[in-house]
Formats: sequence, structure tokens, C-alpha cells
Amino acid sequence: MAKDMTLLWGPGSPPCWRVMIALEEKGLQGYNSKQLSFEKGEHKGKDVLAINPRGQLPAFKHGNITLNESYGACIYLEEQFKGQGNKLTPENKAELALMYQRMFEGQSLFYDRFVPEGERHDSAKQRFAGQLKDEIKLWEGYMQATGPYLAGKSFSLADVIVFPVIAFLFRFGLNEEHFPKLAAYHNTVKDRPSVKNTWPPNWKDTPGMDALKNL
Amino acid sequence: MAKDMTLLWGPGSPPCWRVMIALEEKGLQGYNSKQLSFEKGEHKGKDVLAINPRGQLPAFKHGNITLNESYGACIYLEEQFKGQGNKLTPENKAELALMYQRMFEGQSLFYDRFVPEGERHDSAKQRFAGQLKDEIKLWEGYMQATGPYLAGKSFSLADVIVFPVIAFLFRFGLNEEHFPKLAAYHNTVKDRPSVKNTWPPNWKDTPGMDALKNL
Repeated sequence: MAKDMTLLWGPGSPPCWRVMIALEEKGLQGYNSKQLSFEKGEHKGKDVLAINPRGQLPAFKHGNITLNESYGACIYLEEQFKGQGNKLTPENKAELALMYQRMFEGQSLFYDRFVPEGERHDSAKQRFAGQLKDEIKLWEGYMQATGPYLAGKSFSLADVIVFPVIAFLFRFGLNEEHFPKLAAYHNTVKDRPSVKNTWPPNWKDTPGMDALKNL
Repeated sequence: MAKDMTLLWGPGSPPCWRVMIALEEKGLQGYNSKQLSFEKGEHKGKDVLAINPRGQLPAFKHGNITLNESYGACIYLEEQFKGQGNKLTPENKAELALMYQRMFEGQSLFYDRFVPEGERHDSAKQRFAGQLKDEIKLWEGYMQATGPYLAGKSFSLADVIVFPVIAFLFRFGLNEEHFPKLAAYHNTVKDRPSVKNTWPPNWKDTPGMDALKNL
């Protein structure tokens, strides 16, 4: 039980979700979990600011230690709880390197770039859509080459960190037929207990979006 | 000697530079080093694409292992060469957590967002400048609270990774008097052998820019 840990999180946020998956994988259930609403602006509230001066979620504490950066929190949890729960770093050097490669490449997969209304351009929108499509094609190729998981044979920190982003793409309508390997990966990992137990509550029983259906 | 390692890099690129610093810190001199020119588009050349299909630098190989993501390469080098060169991860759990926190927060410090000419807006320019100033103030506060290094008492992976970004800001004219703690940090670390030995060759004997002088 992880009574000395506190996580403030918002539903549907990949950075929050990956920390929740890491906690589950390491057998750290029972932490103080507080769900906040982005819509209501609760991520800018006092509770969050006391832990994360950026007013962003996740806001995470382990005892007196604060670690709000989701990548950092996942790596830290794996290191500090090596012998507990599921091992998330491959022994094999080549798979370990691939884990780091994919983990950080995952930052190129994110597509939500907010632009204020007066600064929006069709040219930018088209360019971003094109870039995102190219990026997703790259990942489709990765899954073809090295599955079933992102770093090869075993579920690793790369999956903990990047899966929420991939789930987000499908939630926003990514077409399974256009990206069958990625879809198979998504469908496998979504049934993993750590992922199922932390599935965004606001995604249950509500329809997904179709913003990406034509990619 | 690191004859089984190859690094293709471009001068003045923080992602390239941090890998070079990590190699120096771990006593991995003697790797195959190839300097390429961004201006000439050499990062899109055959040599790079053979290692990094994104056509980006750094492109890094260790034997048959490819690790092009600079964060990943630095963490991997520290892990694989734990007993060699300088130790870059603190023993102390609180400093270790702070190292991860700062390392990933460092991604918010980067300011170069290329926007095509037809899509440029003064409003966006002003917003980015304001955001960057707020961000740098945050780091000035960090240095006040926890120096002399980014994660506290000892030079760590956080410095390897974020120092090049901070050096970049000063190269672009950041005013030392406005950010004295950050300037002191910059002036200390720039004399460190690993940093001196890898200082961007195109920064030597050429004047800096003044884009950030009014921040």
C-alpha cells in the first residue's frame, strides 16, 4: 500500500494516466488519489499549486519528495521499487536502448497544439495533420518490426509512457484499418489490468471523437 | 576509448551537445565523431538517415545499438557505464527525484518555435516571449533554492541535459544582470572540462545574438 504517495490527476490526460499506470504496475495501489477537473480549472487551484507551481497535472508526491514531470515520475517509481510489482526495464541492453528510444520518440506523437483563434491558419492545420500522419505511419512500422510491445518482447516503461498517447489517438478517431498494427497493440494493451484499472473515467460510456478519422 | 561508438552531430544544437557532454563525463572519449552542417542540410543526408530515419541530429550508435533521442542516450550512457568516469546520478533519493524533475522540466525552457512567415503573429511572438520570461524566472528561483547544480550538491544528468539549453539562452543574449543566479550557474559549468571540450565550435570567436536581451 502506498499511503505515503499522493497523486492529483485529471481524466484523459496522457501525462497523468502514465503515472497511474506506473503506480499500478509497481503494485503501489492505495495511494491518495484525487481526481480534478480541467474544465473547471481545478488544475490551477490551491491544492495543485502547493505541489506543482506550474499549475499542471499530474502533481505527485512520495513522502516529502515532489515529482510532477510524468516521465520522471515513471522512471523514479521503477527505480525505487525495482523488486516490487512488474519489472518495467528489460535486462537485455538492446531492448533497454530501444525502450529509451521509443519512450522519448513518443513526445513526437502528441498532436494537440492549441492555437488561439485569431492565429489559426488552414496551412498550419494541414501541415500538422500531415506531420501527425507521417509520425503515426512511423509507429505503425515500428510495431511491424518489433512488437508485440514498443521495446520488443516485454511490456516496459516505453509502453507505460507512450500507450496513453496512442490510446488518445484512437479516442480521437484514428482509423484501425489504416493502422492495423497499432490498433492491435492498442487492443492488447487496453486489456492489461494496470491500464483497465486506470482507464479515463470520462471515456467510459461516452462516444469518442472523430477528429482523426481521415488520417 | 569508445571506438565502438559513433556520434553524428551539428554544432550549437542542445540535443547533440548534451550527448557529447555525457560521453566526456563518462570517460568515453575517442568515439567516431562526425560534425555536420545544419545550414547545408547535411542532417538530411544518407549517413544520418542510415542511423536516424527522422533525419535529425544527434544520430548515435553504440555497436549495433541505435539511440538517437538525446535524453535517452544520456540516461543509457550513465546506466551502462556506471562505474566509469563521473557518477551522474545522486545516491540520495530526494536529489535523484529532483534530478528527474529538473531534467524533464528543462523541456519547457526551449524557446525556438519555428513558424512559417505567412503564419506569424505579433500576438504569438509576444505571448511566447512572456512565457519564456516566466519560465526563466522559475529557473532563476530554482538556482536560488537548490544550487550550485540543478539537482543540488552534485553535477548530475540534469545538468548534462539542461545546461546546453541554458547556454543557448545566454548565447542568444539573455541578460546576466536580470538573472544573476542562472548566470553564475552558467559561468561555473561552462568551465567544466566536459563542457569546455565540447563547446560549440561555431560559438567560438563569433559574437552572440541579442534576441533575448530585453527579457
